[in-house]
Amino acid sequence: MSTTTTIGVFDSGFGGLTVLRELLPLVPGAHYIYLGDTARLPYGSKSQATIARYAAESARFLESRGADHLVIACNTASALAMDEITAAVRIPVTGVISPVVQLTHDRYPGADTLILATAATVQSHAYRDSCEAAGLPATEKACPLLVPLIEEGWIDHPVTRDVLRIYLREALALCSPQVVILGCTHYPLIAPLVALTLQELGSNAEVIDSAQATARTVAHMLSQNGTPHPATTTPHAATCEFFATDSVEKFARLGSRFLARPLEEVQLVDLGG
Amino acid sequence: MSTTTTIGVFDSGFGGLTVLRELLPLVPGAHYIYLGDTARLPYGSKSQATIARYAAESARFLESRGADHLVIACNTASALAMDEITAAVRIPVTGVISPVVQLTHDRYPGADTLILATAATVQSHAYRDSCEAAGLPATEKACPLLVPLIEEGWIDHPVTRDVLRIYLREALALCSPQVVILGCTHYPLIAPLVALTLQELGSNAEVIDSAQATARTVAHMLSQNGTPHPATTTPHAATCEFFATDSVEKFARLGSRFLARPLEEVQLVDLGG
Repeated sequence: MSTTTTIGVFDSGFGGLTVLRELLPLVPGAHYIYLGDTARLPYGSKSQATIARYAAESARFLESRGADHLVIACNTASALAMDEITAAVRIPVTGVISPVVQLTHDRYPGADTLILATAATVQSHAYRDSCEAAGLPATEKACPLLVPLIEEGWIDHPVTRDVLRIYLREALALCSPQVVILGCTHYPLIAPLVALTLQELGSNAEVIDSAQATARTVAHMLSQNGTPHPATTTPHAATCEFFATDSVEKFARLGSRFLARPLEEVQLVDLGG
Repeated sequence: MSTTTTIGVFDSGFGGLTVLRELLPLVPGAHYIYLGDTARLPYGSKSQATIARYAAESARFLESRGADHLVIACNTASALAMDEITAAVRIPVTGVISPVVQLTHDRYPGADTLILATAATVQSHAYRDSCEAAGLPATEKACPLLVPLIEEGWIDHPVTRDVLRIYLREALALCSPQVVILGCTHYPLIAPLVALTLQELGSNAEVIDSAQATARTVAHMLSQNGTPHPATTTPHAATCEFFATDSVEKFARLGSRFLARPLEEVQLVDLGG
């Protein structure tokens, strides 16, 4: 009998691959199944009911493929559909919001917190509510151009620097954060640029990455649930399967940037219209 | 019996409002019904079959509301679903691609033509094929950041100028166009910036706007079909109804930029998932 853990990782697109990238060294012996629901992205513009239906279908797909732990590596689904996802499957589910808020609270209790996220995530106020429940005064800043810039591949680009400077200057006019949360799974790709721009603007806020925080939480949960901890087992290479609901060519091309390594074969899956 | 023409205008989002804006002075006495299928945008990332189904549903909706002429003010649907749309309704249908290519050919026969468009439109090569059929040597340039910048409201903004300079410099390294077609219904909002940037880069290409070309074609068709020409009738104000399949608040807010005037009440319509 195999003791390999199978971790399902779900996002509407590619961004969740930054969570997978953080998971690989923390839980190296696991088998990973990643699903990007690329045919139906962006979730941000959809109604809550539609997002919940899509996310629940995606979660059931990953469970049906053998996942025994599910990571919702998608801010919109984490913000709007955690109840429906948890109800749709029988396996434990981890979203991206609780882990990063918990980590912020543990490290910097009571810290003034700035959350950078997409317009849809900001409109849901899921981060603000979660921060405030943890005693962290929170300001949310929508940064709608960052995802298109990152998807264009302009990671360390003068235009991206200019855009970031504009967004951060606007945000720092409203608050003096001690912590800046990257509340979108695309943003880890520009984390160094965010830290640099904050310094340029005279802020010494710490940057916390929701992908990293989520991966740590999952690794911790697995070790508590009796899954052999990577440090105590003979390490063997993680295996990965990738599924996308739209163009597998585009997924492999863009996804390799997010995963920071070439993607193995991507399989097309149809979850319906 | 009323002789008012009812023109249905369809786009996946707000961009088609630039076509409506051009139609209003050319066919001022008409009644307009605009549908933005905002819940299902962007069409660009969907399969051809899905786009065709969505577009056909949208076309039938506008016909059922009384439209006796249909304008597909959406490049993706014009590129990928004209046959299905035409088959779905009994009223005449005009897309955005043929009119602008025809206008370019009439004014500048044989001209080297550069098409600026979204990645999805470029991938379909609908503009290139249509230009080459009209004897216009064509180069297509995908400009994926322009729509997000325009939707952010950064119309005459240093960042938008920088991005446009980068895209146009890349395009001008490949061709020396006499004509530049704005092949996306968002782009008329930055038409002056495109012309200025071309001049800066040493090009004296003419900029042709697909919204304007489409509106002229529709006005011409209506006058040929016996619809009273605006110049020969007592002008009376156009009336407009607006429908969106997602947030009507966002539609009214963003849409007013594209229409260049405040939007009357927007009605929510459900065309299914």
